[in-house]
Amino acid sequence: MAVYTDVGDDELAAFLAEYDVGAAVSFKGIAEGVENSNFVVETERGLYILTLYEKRVKAGDLPFFLGLMDHLAANGIRCPVPVKARDGHALRTLAGRPAALVSFLKGVWPRRIAPLHCQLLGGAMAAFHVAGRDYELKRANALALDGWKGLFQAVEARADSVMPGIASEIEDELVDIARHWPKALPTGIIHADLFPDNVFFLGEQLSGIIDFYFACEDFLAYDIAIALNAWCFEPDSAFNVTKARGLLNAYGKVRPLDDAELMALPLLARGAALRFLLTRLYDWLNRPEGALVKPKDPREYLKKLRFHRQVKGPEAYGLG
Amino acid sequence: MAVYTDVGDDELAAFLAEYDVGAAVSFKGIAEGVENSNFVVETERGLYILTLYEKRVKAGDLPFFLGLMDHLAANGIRCPVPVKARDGHALRTLAGRPAALVSFLKGVWPRRIAPLHCQLLGGAMAAFHVAGRDYELKRANALALDGWKGLFQAVEARADSVMPGIASEIEDELVDIARHWPKALPTGIIHADLFPDNVFFLGEQLSGIIDFYFACEDFLAYDIAIALNAWCFEPDSAFNVTKARGLLNAYGKVRPLDDAELMALPLLARGAALRFLLTRLYDWLNRPEGALVKPKDPREYLKKLRFHRQVKGPEAYGLG
Repeated sequence: MAVYTDVGDDELAAFLAEYDVGAAVSFKGIAEGVENSNFVVETERGLYILTLYEKRVKAGDLPFFLGLMDHLAANGIRCPVPVKARDGHALRTLAGRPAALVSFLKGVWPRRIAPLHCQLLGGAMAAFHVAGRDYELKRANALALDGWKGLFQAVEARADSVMPGIASEIEDELVDIARHWPKALPTGIIHADLFPDNVFFLGEQLSGIIDFYFACEDFLAYDIAIALNAWCFEPDSAFNVTKARGLLNAYGKVRPLDDAELMALPLLARGAALRFLLTRLYDWLNRPEGALVKPKDPREYLKKLRFHRQVKGPEAYGLG
Repeated sequence: MAVYTDVGDDELAAFLAEYDVGAAVSFKGIAEGVENSNFVVETERGLYILTLYEKRVKAGDLPFFLGLMDHLAANGIRCPVPVKARDGHALRTLAGRPAALVSFLKGVWPRRIAPLHCQLLGGAMAAFHVAGRDYELKRANALALDGWKGLFQAVEARADSVMPGIASEIEDELVDIARHWPKALPTGIIHADLFPDNVFFLGEQLSGIIDFYFACEDFLAYDIAIALNAWCFEPDSAFNVTKARGLLNAYGKVRPLDDAELMALPLLARGAALRFLLTRLYDWLNRPEGALVKPKDPREYLKKLRFHRQVKGPEAYGLG
């Protein structure tokens, strides 16, 4: 939940006056998103989302993110579209922060994941990967192998305070995963954070994808691996193979996975679990006193990592 | 900022199905309001606010609050109106909490107070007091003199940790204010929390009042005293007599203040400052670790209290 920066009424009026959207008729901070300050703005023209980018997002990356939303929308992906001000620019400044106004996407993110959600997600993710192919801007994945090592160094000394023995388990994983990490799989633009709260549904349709602020170039199948972790485990930590099969089959109908991708899935899923384990550990150990954001339990991702470690092959995910 | 309870999609669908509002097309937690969980819900019919009442609101008081909104709206006051489900009831249960759906009120609360805001507020508050006259339900003010004494006992031992000497200053105030507190002023339903974030404006119009969850019976002029504190001090703690005069004159055009009310204003304003000083102190000293709500600085209200203590009469507020 997040409003880190409030916006004065004069500031808001001056900001909106640079667009052709009319004046604000309502303005409310949203308690979602942990990286930025988000507001629902209703203007005389309709509903929009206003985002102020806080310090965890690098200003230099914003043209990549906003351009990506434009590119995806132009290629048939349902996502928020940056609104351009009259000068043609979507990236602006408000309350001393980089800021953008984007279109309001209808839909509700699913609190309880059903197999249908996973199927719809699989198809939409593949369409996203196909649509991203000819996007001209580049951004490396800051949370790839090297980034994990840096995170581990930052949490190593205090990690065992969260769970005894976790530091050495992570260290072993880092070494093993790095040794076997694939070198050549199909790459492209991945979302890299396709958790349920970033995917909206309306009835039995997927209505769109939001929050592109981790998007980057990486193995396309790594995006699937992130989603297997985020969508296919039950609250009791059991892996739901029906959900995984639905996700993978729907994905494959839009962009078939090659054999190397299929064989790499267990390792990619281990890596994805390790990545979220590390960032959650970091956030857990570095939460400021009186923080506005309640950190998520890192141990959930340790259980997921252990599941993928004992997997023998892609058939564990319902394939073949 | 507040979403204490999340709502599952199945729960939300079942809840909305009891109304004639259609299905949800979007659903977002709002980062406003410190007592309850609030969501903007867009349905096929339009925008609504969904509120889940958390434990600081007594369930037994909810019929008073919801009935008051109905009564005020029926008497020309712009405020959210509780939506009745098909069974005729507005007060329901969702996610284990009492819950209500209310109409969405357009407008933006002012972050920077201009004299015009204070004028418009004065007129709207008086209209509210007049409209509340024949409301049939009753609710005592839990944060009146006796409530202040209870709060003081709860903070006394640790108050000096916030500011040395504050405990004895508050104690002296409590004695002095209780001794001189008026016994017979015009009473009625007051809002009791008319801070800027509860009053919406659209351009140069006041578009409505929200958040009736402190409303109660008390001296009508005490509501004015709360607003003098909340609206008429500048960020540097200077009292802005122009704003106060605008507020009071606009109020008096709708409901003229009698002499006893005018003479009581400085003491009522001291009492109102003490009430918010005490609740802020309490919240400051009792904030849970990792709290989602950042408590407000109590010392702001000590400065306001001291201002009213040195006031000689109602002319300090721009009258006469």
